Amino acid sequence: MSRKQNLKRMFEARSIAVIGASGDATRIGGRPVAMLKSMGYRGELHPINPNRDEVQGLKAYPSIAEVPGAVDLAICAVPGALVEDVLKQCAARGVAGVIVFAGGFAEVGGEGVEAQARLAAIGREADMRIIGPNCMGFANFALNMPASFHPAFARPMPEGRIGLVSQSGAFGGLSAIMAMDRGVGFRHVLTTGNEGDVGVADCLDYLVDDPGTEVILLYIEGVRDGPAFLDALARARKAQKPVVAVKLGRTDAGARAAQSHTSALAGADAIYDAVFHQFGVHRVSSIEEFFDLGASIAVGGRPPGDRTALVTVSGGVGVLMADDAAARGLDVAELPAPTQARFKEIVPYAGVNNPLDVTGQIINQPDLFEKAMRLVLDEGDYDSVVGFQGATLSVPENVEPSLQMWRSLKADYPDKTFAVSSLMSDEAQHLFEGAGVPAFREATHATRYVAAGAHFTRAFATDFAWNPEVRETTPLAAGPYTEARALETLAAAGVPVMPTRLAGSAEAAVEAAAALGFPVVMKIVSPDIVHKTDVGGVRLGLGSAEDVRAAYGEMMTTVAAKAPEAKLEGVLLAPMISGGVETIMGVHVDPIFGPAVMFGLGGVFVEVLKDVTFRVAPFDAVEARRMIDEIRGRAMLDGVRGAPPADVGALAEALAAMSRFAAAHRDQMASVDVNPFVVLPEGRGAMALDAVIELKDA
Amino acid sequence: MSRKQNLKRMFEARSIAVIGASGDATRIGGRPVAMLKSMGYRGELHPINPNRDEVQGLKAYPSIAEVPGAVDLAICAVPGALVEDVLKQCAARGVAGVIVFAGGFAEVGGEGVEAQARLAAIGREADMRIIGPNCMGFANFALNMPASFHPAFARPMPEGRIGLVSQSGAFGGLSAIMAMDRGVGFRHVLTTGNEGDVGVADCLDYLVDDPGTEVILLYIEGVRDGPAFLDALARARKAQKPVVAVKLGRTDAGARAAQSHTSALAGADAIYDAVFHQFGVHRVSSIEEFFDLGASIAVGGRPPGDRTALVTVSGGVGVLMADDAAARGLDVAELPAPTQARFKEIVPYAGVNNPLDVTGQIINQPDLFEKAMRLVLDEGDYDSVVGFQGATLSVPENVEPSLQMWRSLKADYPDKTFAVSSLMSDEAQHLFEGAGVPAFREATHATRYVAAGAHFTRAFATDFAWNPEVRETTPLAAGPYTEARALETLAAAGVPVMPTRLAGSAEAAVEAAAALGFPVVMKIVSPDIVHKTDVGGVRLGLGSAEDVRAAYGEMMTTVAAKAPEAKLEGVLLAPMISGGVETIMGVHVDPIFGPAVMFGLGGVFVEVLKDVTFRVAPFDAVEARRMIDEIRGRAMLDGVRGAPPADVGALAEALAAMSRFAAAHRDQMASVDVNPFVVLPEGRGAMALDAVIELKDA
Repeated sequence: MSRKQNLKRMFEARSIAVIGASGDATRIGGRPVAMLKSMGYRGELHPINPNRDEVQGLKAYPSIAEVPGAVDLAICAVPGALVEDVLKQCAARGVAGVIVFAGGFAEVGGEGVEAQARLAAIGREADMRIIGPNCMGFANFALNMPASFHPAFARPMPEGRIGLVSQSGAFGGLSAIMAMDRGVGFRHVLTTGNEGDVGVADCLDYLVDDPGTEVILLYIEGVRDGPAFLDALARARKAQKPVVAVKLGRTDAGARAAQSHTSALAGADAIYDAVFHQFGVHRVSSIEEFFDLGASIAVGGRPPGDRTALVTVSGGVGVLMADDAAARGLDVAELPAPTQARFKEIVPYAGVNNPLDVTGQIINQPDLFEKAMRLVLDEGDYDSVVGFQGATLSVPENVEPSLQMWRSLKADYPDKTFAVSSLMSDEAQHLFEGAGVPAFREATHATRYVAAGAHFTRAFATDFAWNPEVRETTPLAAGPYTEARALETLAAAGVPVMPTRLAGSAEAAVEAAAALGFPVVMKIVSPDIVHKTDVGGVRLGLGSAEDVRAAYGEMMTTVAAKAPEAKLEGVLLAPMISGGVETIMGVHVDPIFGPAVMFGLGGVFVEVLKDVTFRVAPFDAVEARRMIDEIRGRAMLDGVRGAPPADVGALAEALAAMSRFAAAHRDQMASVDVNPFVVLPEGRGAMALDAVIELKDA
Repeated sequence: MSRKQNLKRMFEARSIAVIGASGDATRIGGRPVAMLKSMGYRGELHPINPNRDEVQGLKAYPSIAEVPGAVDLAICAVPGALVEDVLKQCAARGVAGVIVFAGGFAEVGGEGVEAQARLAAIGREADMRIIGPNCMGFANFALNMPASFHPAFARPMPEGRIGLVSQSGAFGGLSAIMAMDRGVGFRHVLTTGNEGDVGVADCLDYLVDDPGTEVILLYIEGVRDGPAFLDALARARKAQKPVVAVKLGRTDAGARAAQSHTSALAGADAIYDAVFHQFGVHRVSSIEEFFDLGASIAVGGRPPGDRTALVTVSGGVGVLMADDAAARGLDVAELPAPTQARFKEIVPYAGVNNPLDVTGQIINQPDLFEKAMRLVLDEGDYDSVVGFQGATLSVPENVEPSLQMWRSLKADYPDKTFAVSSLMSDEAQHLFEGAGVPAFREATHATRYVAAGAHFTRAFATDFAWNPEVRETTPLAAGPYTEARALETLAAAGVPVMPTRLAGSAEAAVEAAAALGFPVVMKIVSPDIVHKTDVGGVRLGLGSAEDVRAAYGEMMTTVAAKAPEAKLEGVLLAPMISGGVETIMGVHVDPIFGPAVMFGLGGVFVEVLKDVTFRVAPFDAVEARRMIDEIRGRAMLDGVRGAPPADVGALAEALAAMSRFAAAHRDQMASVDVNPFVVLPEGRGAMALDAVIELKDA
């Protein structure tokens, strides 16, 4: 079977062998047996122990070889020194996958790195998957299967639609407890340890294919296999499964701490951010938000669009929610005027804009809240409605009537997304969420949920074709690249460049200039000269044939005098470009994710504000536009100080072409810098005025 | 007694009359009596009811006039139409303050506005304070005194050090419930309703003076009395009382909703932000954070500085906390190398940088956590330590031992600030907080608390003299102001301007130019000409006496031809300024807070990025530097592209001078615009090159 099939067999094992099984349920070899039994795992469970016939009431086998039938999963609970031998036995027995708890491998460096590589090799040869070493295992709660020694995985778990992948074992355990507290179930908690074989990307890929997993949470410190991770994210997006991620190390202090904590090579955090934007992942930076969003989306789904209505019993909290919703990109559109008027008839001093504030009048007219909700739903054309009920639900008697109302709203408006906020007990929260209505004590967490849901709806609605395999058959010619060659190469790749002509004599230069149109720029061409200006090798604004002829002669003399060793190939002529907006673009090769395209505005924007954005290559012009729109100085391209709007379409096409070029030559490329890339007024295109291409050392 | 003294008498009333008192404890006139009784209010309580001798077991009086002794507070629970008469009786009786519950005043517009003004006038005349109308009253929990009809104020409240001012009555009620749930007590909850008399500023001022109030929470939609609010904030800062604020309406949608919800005139949200920065207020945007910070600071105080250490049982969560702490401005400084080595001896694979990760080894060595804490405290020179204990405290047996450890740490290191995070029950959280250690389920909320505390420590350490009364005796001369007069006026106010000379003849112009130094700029001076360039009234770069003489003649001819009606007063000469960084500064008069100084970088920074910052006037150069440092393009002033660092000191002095000028002439000034204000290289100063001053219509 394929490695992918074996991963699935392992995560959904119908038979498990526990190697190093102990009769003592508190020991690391005893815990998995005890936990699988106590949770009611229904597959076959085979303890392996050469010294016992029976372990915890189950028949024990002396070795994996003796176990009858297929073995989908072996839990290897033996000390590190014995692991290699056990893995060999497992491979020989055709086991689909093994969890290795033992530490002392790559995380300790040196010898351990080599030992881990040997384990990986054993697995690879047999298509047998390995989780760990140095890991906590996983739990498939849908199958009552805690394949771990972490006691948190043996606690009752509500039925769940959430899959969590955690690079931290400790966090995996914590998460199970937190899910229970939140009253929302996990379906899978997959921890990956040292990732000798199975990594985050594999786990993510599995969860995308698992029909019962609807929301995916990623808790990651650093991905090892960038391309596989990107592929899996693309599949998650295509499958419309929301992915919420915590990625550690977003600050220097955090990155330093992460480096000291994990042996994983971390790509640049800015590239992670780019990846998350590009693939529609929602990144958060607290555990509370991580869980809260995962749970709420699993419970309440996502709204079909951005329009949200707020119904409140407190004007002030209504304003707070409006602020939060708007700041998170929701459209807090005003209620239609007739609807406003209609509600004013009921409560003359109500706020009826949006939020709709039923006011303290709710105390005298408890049905006012439902009236307001239905009015908004019937007449407002909103995608979601958030209701704030103050302290109402903290009074136990009020819970059931409110629950009835929300149930009937959900039934009557099945396409809308709802959220309720009120002070309430954990039990009340669980009741609402059981009815499919995410419930929040904090009002702004309700709007935060709706905004995150709308984010996913937007992301999933976008045409998104991820095809990194755009390699060309023709590799790039060997370097070094002069400016002229770099521009030519980019032009061939579809990145527009300014028209240029090479000339080897004064007469040829005059002819070339005339063809380009005056005024022109003249630059020396020599593979030996890097800083052309320093040797008198650049002349700007040559306005006539005479100027060009004179400049040619002067340049040859000056350059020859200043750089006597340089081989001069002639001059490059180009028209003087005036107007347009100066931007920069480039390619940076990330150690994890490969080539990423950088874009920014030129001048102070990049130098002072570091106002740049990234996307991993390749991407299309639609994604490039999104990239352009992220720049803080975006308005520069709309035209400022009376300048005409710039040709953003041409810019987007150029970025997409650059990304295809970067992806096609990912193996050869070290970096590309285009500075400036001038975006001319709308309809007039855009072009690179200068370019540097560097290849990796061959 | 003074109005301020009467406010205090009212908030700490020793005798209360309830006017419109009802025997029915569920009615609005019955509730305050019942609540005061049930909470154990120990002052005198006098129901007023003309139809009853006794109300809820208390002797009732037919009117306020009959009540014996002084009355500090009258709770007016009568319908709106009767309020005016009741207030007159209270004023006649010498009551210190009245709470008016009834609505139908300014919030309904028209008639109601006038009625409210009449109430205010009655109070003003008698120095009697009025809270409301249309309000929920207040609660002084220290005196068991719920002066309100909101049932939440009659619930048991832990002893507290927090004072809350809320412009929303509903939120005031909610807050009492939330405080109980959080296990942290309020001392005061003051709601202000329509603010016919007592506003947020009065309440804040009272809390600053109240010795039992240590932390102040403000929940505001819009301040009515800006100057009083600023004075009170300045006093809070001087008294070192942290102020945490929610200000609604930070987005357009929120501002629109706020406007529909309150009749208050809202100043610009950017000016609120400026005020909060300037006065050291910590602004937050969720109720959860608002409460959490208030409660934690009340419980745990603030750290003496920014250096924080993180001790964790989970490497991953440690990184998350490091990220959060660093992003919030804390200094996550590395542990000293010998300390790192010492801990490595105990746990070889521990992360020892900062966070100090004790790893899963904690399971085998439960004392490892305390060892790590003490090592960090003894050797690390940190101001605060945050401990993450994973799920440890969710196990009830672990709570007491951990509590012992934290207690002994607090005792042994009394100057340090501590915070603990772990999964734990509400009860466990209350136990830790009872011991003075703020406790958080969410790890990043622990770092958030420490960061907020450090923010206050920084703010309080800053020399801060708020003295808005810098009015000058000489008012500004009447307008309009020509550029020359504007520059002259600013120069007199201490804002450096470029040297200029006026000249009425060609010879005088030559002489002036020679004195200024060539090259010079020449501009026409005429009160009738606004756009000087359009009529040929500007010449740049005049390099010699001949150039100046010729330019003078040409300018007079050209301008006379193009603007024949204009009265020409001569020309203004100034040196050509080259180099330096172009900035802008100005004065904007906010309807609430008065003159605010704006600062930004010129060019794209202001035009494209709207990269500007504000401070209310006046302020000193230290504050001006903080203002300058907030600009996103700050690095421009450090010198980019090889430019020398700019004279930031001169810039700061100029901003401070501008702020004194704005404050001194606040009554006359409409706006000031200085663009550009050029900041020359360090040591060479800074100067306004152009200025516009507009006065209010007289």
